Amino acid sequence: MLNFVNDYSEGACPEVLQRLVETNMEQLPGYGTDKYTRSAQAKIAQACGKPDAQVFFISGGTQTNQIVISTVLQQYQGVVAADTGHVNVHEAGAIEAGDHKVLSIPGVDGKLPAPALREYLETFWADENHEQMVFPGMVYISWSTEYGTLYSKAELEELHNICREYEIPLYIDGARMGYGLVAPGADVTLPDIANLADIFYIGGTKVGALCGEAVVFPKGDAPQYFSTLIKRRGGLLAKGRLLGVQFDTLFTDGLYTRISHQAIDTAQVIRKALQNKGYEFYIDSPTNLTFVVLENQRMAELKQKVNFDFWERKDASHTVVRFATSWATKMEDAQALADLL
Amino acid sequence: MLNFVNDYSEGACPEVLQRLVETNMEQLPGYGTDKYTRSAQAKIAQACGKPDAQVFFISGGTQTNQIVISTVLQQYQGVVAADTGHVNVHEAGAIEAGDHKVLSIPGVDGKLPAPALREYLETFWADENHEQMVFPGMVYISWSTEYGTLYSKAELEELHNICREYEIPLYIDGARMGYGLVAPGADVTLPDIANLADIFYIGGTKVGALCGEAVVFPKGDAPQYFSTLIKRRGGLLAKGRLLGVQFDTLFTDGLYTRISHQAIDTAQVIRKALQNKGYEFYIDSPTNLTFVVLENQRMAELKQKVNFDFWERKDASHTVVRFATSWATKMEDAQALADLL
Amino acid sequence: MLNFVNDYSEGACPEVLQRLVETNMEQLPGYGTDKYTRSAQAKIAQACGKPDAQVFFISGGTQTNQIVISTVLQQYQGVVAADTGHVNVHEAGAIEAGDHKVLSIPGVDGKLPAPALREYLETFWADENHEQMVFPGMVYISWSTEYGTLYSKAELEELHNICREYEIPLYIDGARMGYGLVAPGADVTLPDIANLADIFYIGGTKVGALCGEAVVFPKGDAPQYFSTLIKRRGGLLAKGRLLGVQFDTLFTDGLYTRISHQAIDTAQVIRKALQNKGYEFYIDSPTNLTFVVLENQRMAELKQKVNFDFWERKDASHTVVRFATSWATKMEDAQALADLL
Amino acid sequence: MLNFVNDYSEGACPEVLQRLVETNMEQLPGYGTDKYTRSAQAKIAQACGKPDAQVFFISGGTQTNQIVISTVLQQYQGVVAADTGHVNVHEAGAIEAGDHKVLSIPGVDGKLPAPALREYLETFWADENHEQMVFPGMVYISWSTEYGTLYSKAELEELHNICREYEIPLYIDGARMGYGLVAPGADVTLPDIANLADIFYIGGTKVGALCGEAVVFPKGDAPQYFSTLIKRRGGLLAKGRLLGVQFDTLFTDGLYTRISHQAIDTAQVIRKALQNKGYEFYIDSPTNLTFVVLENQRMAELKQKVNFDFWERKDASHTVVRFATSWATKMEDAQALADLL
Repeated sequence: MLNFVNDYSEGACPEVLQRLVETNMEQLPGYGTDKYTRSAQAKIAQACGKPDAQVFFISGGTQTNQIVISTVLQQYQGVVAADTGHVNVHEAGAIEAGDHKVLSIPGVDGKLPAPALREYLETFWADENHEQMVFPGMVYISWSTEYGTLYSKAELEELHNICREYEIPLYIDGARMGYGLVAPGADVTLPDIANLADIFYIGGTKVGALCGEAVVFPKGDAPQYFSTLIKRRGGLLAKGRLLGVQFDTLFTDGLYTRISHQAIDTAQVIRKALQNKGYEFYIDSPTNLTFVVLENQRMAELKQKVNFDFWERKDASHTVVRFATSWATKMEDAQALADLL
Repeated sequence: MLNFVNDYSEGACPEVLQRLVETNMEQLPGYGTDKYTRSAQAKIAQACGKPDAQVFFISGGTQTNQIVISTVLQQYQGVVAADTGHVNVHEAGAIEAGDHKVLSIPGVDGKLPAPALREYLETFWADENHEQMVFPGMVYISWSTEYGTLYSKAELEELHNICREYEIPLYIDGARMGYGLVAPGADVTLPDIANLADIFYIGGTKVGALCGEAVVFPKGDAPQYFSTLIKRRGGLLAKGRLLGVQFDTLFTDGLYTRISHQAIDTAQVIRKALQNKGYEFYIDSPTNLTFVVLENQRMAELKQKVNFDFWERKDASHTVVRFATSWATKMEDAQALADLL
Repeated sequence: MLNFVNDYSEGACPEVLQRLVETNMEQLPGYGTDKYTRSAQAKIAQACGKPDAQVFFISGGTQTNQIVISTVLQQYQGVVAADTGHVNVHEAGAIEAGDHKVLSIPGVDGKLPAPALREYLETFWADENHEQMVFPGMVYISWSTEYGTLYSKAELEELHNICREYEIPLYIDGARMGYGLVAPGADVTLPDIANLADIFYIGGTKVGALCGEAVVFPKGDAPQYFSTLIKRRGGLLAKGRLLGVQFDTLFTDGLYTRISHQAIDTAQVIRKALQNKGYEFYIDSPTNLTFVVLENQRMAELKQKVNFDFWERKDASHTVVRFATSWATKMEDAQALADLL
Repeated sequence: MLNFVNDYSEGACPEVLQRLVETNMEQLPGYGTDKYTRSAQAKIAQACGKPDAQVFFISGGTQTNQIVISTVLQQYQGVVAADTGHVNVHEAGAIEAGDHKVLSIPGVDGKLPAPALREYLETFWADENHEQMVFPGMVYISWSTEYGTLYSKAELEELHNICREYEIPLYIDGARMGYGLVAPGADVTLPDIANLADIFYIGGTKVGALCGEAVVFPKGDAPQYFSTLIKRRGGLLAKGRLLGVQFDTLFTDGLYTRISHQAIDTAQVIRKALQNKGYEFYIDSPTNLTFVVLENQRMAELKQKVNFDFWERKDASHTVVRFATSWATKMEDAQALADLL
């Protein structure tokens, strides 16, 4: 059975796991005060080109989004996101459990269109009754998005400028940031992200780690006592080393981006096969997620041999499905899928 | 200056205020255990045709929506509402401060269309990943709506049936219920509401009271220790008599619906004038709220003599405005507005 | 039946109610933007000797405590209070529903002892693990207390100084502030309160109003968009006039303190009788609450003719009970009780 | 430098880490639906003697306490705990961030005394005003406690019986359960725990795992959609295998209890040395935590060669300190410390 159902099917990338084994019996202080965590923080700050950046490690993406949003927003504010954004759809209410509203705007190809964002903000502030409403207090985007698409540098700059104008932070969910950074046609680097975002996280769970995400405040303006705030939401591991060692390894000698290439290379093989065989793409994505329209009978046959993700019903006889690759996808599996299509 | 800016510009209707004066120095127990509160509860249960109904009084509408939604929903659930619903737009985040997501569906004329609701519920339960999402756990509608429109009895029955099918409660926000009950063409009675809704509130603030809303659980299935839950959210008045006396008066000899007629009669005068003079209605509403398109220059002139509510910009040269009437609107003022139009 | 069960048994003081009647049909803007609210705010600021004070009106005491504590504290902080404090005992979890811990310290006579407070703060900051704990971020006291006792000016100054030293606000719950201000032996004035507290509220519900409390930020440093924050917690009345008119009246010509005297005068009569007849006082209180130890048989007899509050069991044959007076207590009733004792 | 500062200084026990390595590249479904998680659940249920038990894995202890307490309690309830309990002191407000109050009772040797619990519950229900208060809705204890002490089986039965009488669940925090189970004199087995507690968790972070705790509902009565509730609080790992594989290994061939012995054996060596040399014990603990009073000068000297935990100041010249051992403590290190004392 071939497996393309998601990008978290395996454990950690071997170098990461190896490092956990090597450091396992070292006695280290807890709660993220160990030397590996410090080293990982420094390496990430450097990779971002932001020596003053503050970096924190949190066990998962939903937890990270909940904590960042609930600690950075004022109580009268909500977070603006595309209606397709992960925080609006697939977090089981974690943002609201953190007491904040997601202010959704119709997304296009998984992205938040800058003109729609501007109009939303203008309309809000022009409304005489806006003090009865939830104030837009942060802009959330994901890069790469849940649809595998990427904002160009120009698009990020436009969102950045709107956020500057309205004095609200731009927050980038980078659960799949590695795959975006090495995607064909991507014109955005990690230092670009660090320049254009006020807060972002670099995803580990989907890119080489057993678990864990690295939250970056590139300007060094994290909320005070942020570690305490992470603990208050249950996200602080006693053995902070688990995250420190992993990210220290991922950010040594460019491992994070190096392993990301595999996801893209294998996705390219699949996309080329789909294209050659005349399949209809649901969306044009350059990263590790491929969305395609399958005729239902064809889908059922394929399902016998391949695990993939149901996305949505297109019409009575067609369905949109998703093939996901990752750092762990074998080229031979991608080729086998290509042959099956 | 004529005033049609909202339906809460005056204090209480005179009979209500008079009764507060008469009972003022009586020594009564606190927190809603006094005889007037008991009497009001019994009269409302009777007016609903539901002798087993449980009735509670809460100081305002936002508080009521927050408390009902946060105490009735399970933690993994959210409330489905039209995107124009009060809980989705004008509660300053109170629902999310109560830890729940508003699951919004595009509204039509301020109403939640039954087919869209059904599709939403079907899609949710068919989604393989629905356990990562917020479960639809309640349907919220307002009657009459924020746009002054009304669901017909058939429409309510359809929503009721969908809720039965999916085993989730139907909750009706009746901030302006009085005005709906006596609107021309309305085919819904208070007992109908009590039959079709699982929970609803009868608005006092906008219909004759100084403050206060009556929450009704027609089947007598309020959450346990509901008074404690109201207090926990800050909504329980020590002098519960303030709400008890008011609602006892409003539900004596049909006062509640009697005073509601005045809002409709005066709105009719305004609507007839608008129609005769060829204005374009923004929406066709039979209740106390009238939405009309004004040419901007005309609007500016009118603004000199009349207070009304800006609703939204229609285009570069036209604006949608709202004229609100209430139990307190004088017929001579409605006539004066009609003459000015 | 004589009634001394609590201090919220009647409605509003007649002058207040009269003013509500007089202004009832005036058309006023909503949500606390009306002229009476503005006037009440100015009069309270003046009575406090703080022209820059910001004043807000909220419907009840629990709501006020919840809103002040949850909006002023940082997320990593809790509120320090005597274990007998209202926020720790009788608010049905409203503070925790607002996401904050009450850090309780054993109280003495209902008061928070300054030395215990200082030790608590010192110990917290000296603890190497304090970042795993809830930070003390505010000091809550009530004046007068739930036990009818009063902090002297010197005691308040000591608490004030500790708060300055540790840079945390001192918040005074003044549900019964009026009764404290006119109590025999009280050496604290409203301007003293405004000088020594960072935030306080002046209670209306128990001192002359139908409902409502006035929150004062004497330095004018209320949290931004505080009205929106009040609404988000459900505490903002559409007809803000209801609170504005009441407090405007209470702070005209010293009505607030004038009516407070009646509670003290009647309590004095009761206390003198108790003293003369050799009853054991549970606590020495100069305000409107009198706590006394009754032999159980005596208590049962008295219960036939008088409503009073059970406080706690003292031993197998004795019980502590509370007699409460208020602005509305008739001297003839106090005398009747005195005769019965 | 010798290290006895806490029981989470190393990574995972070697068998656990080895198993993570062996299974690393297997493709497994996410969110706890993989075969290792299923196997771990079955083995734990069996070890508890409760075939119908439901078992869930959560990344850490604070998160676990927050999730269990906030999902099992009714909104009007709080959790009763000893004032020394972890949930009352060292969780940075996580319980209150989950909206619930910790109702603290003075602890004795880190334990909640049954008579004090009974009196608390009796007093609460006898109080006429209890509906204004937070209802006791769960009893929280830790086993072993934060002071290294253990409830005997008879003591647990007494607490269990009180909980039955008042119909509230008994919840046992087993962060250090392994060390309790194998402590000298302990008369409680895992099946005993499963019989006497309504909910408990078996700690992994401090007993052999990199991270993770196993929550057990021995009667199979977990809140509905508990996985969704875990996700809503940010505690659900995409790679649930990380926890599943670890607990599957820990509960294979008794590894969990086997490794726990090392912590006890080494603690015994330290305690014997302390005893022989005449040190004053702060508390008599049979598990992996040893509390002893040191003269300050002696403490300073020892600090040069040993890491241990400051606990509290005893008097001007003495301090209470804690030595912690774990599954990873080497006997030679324990002996070295013994020699140093």
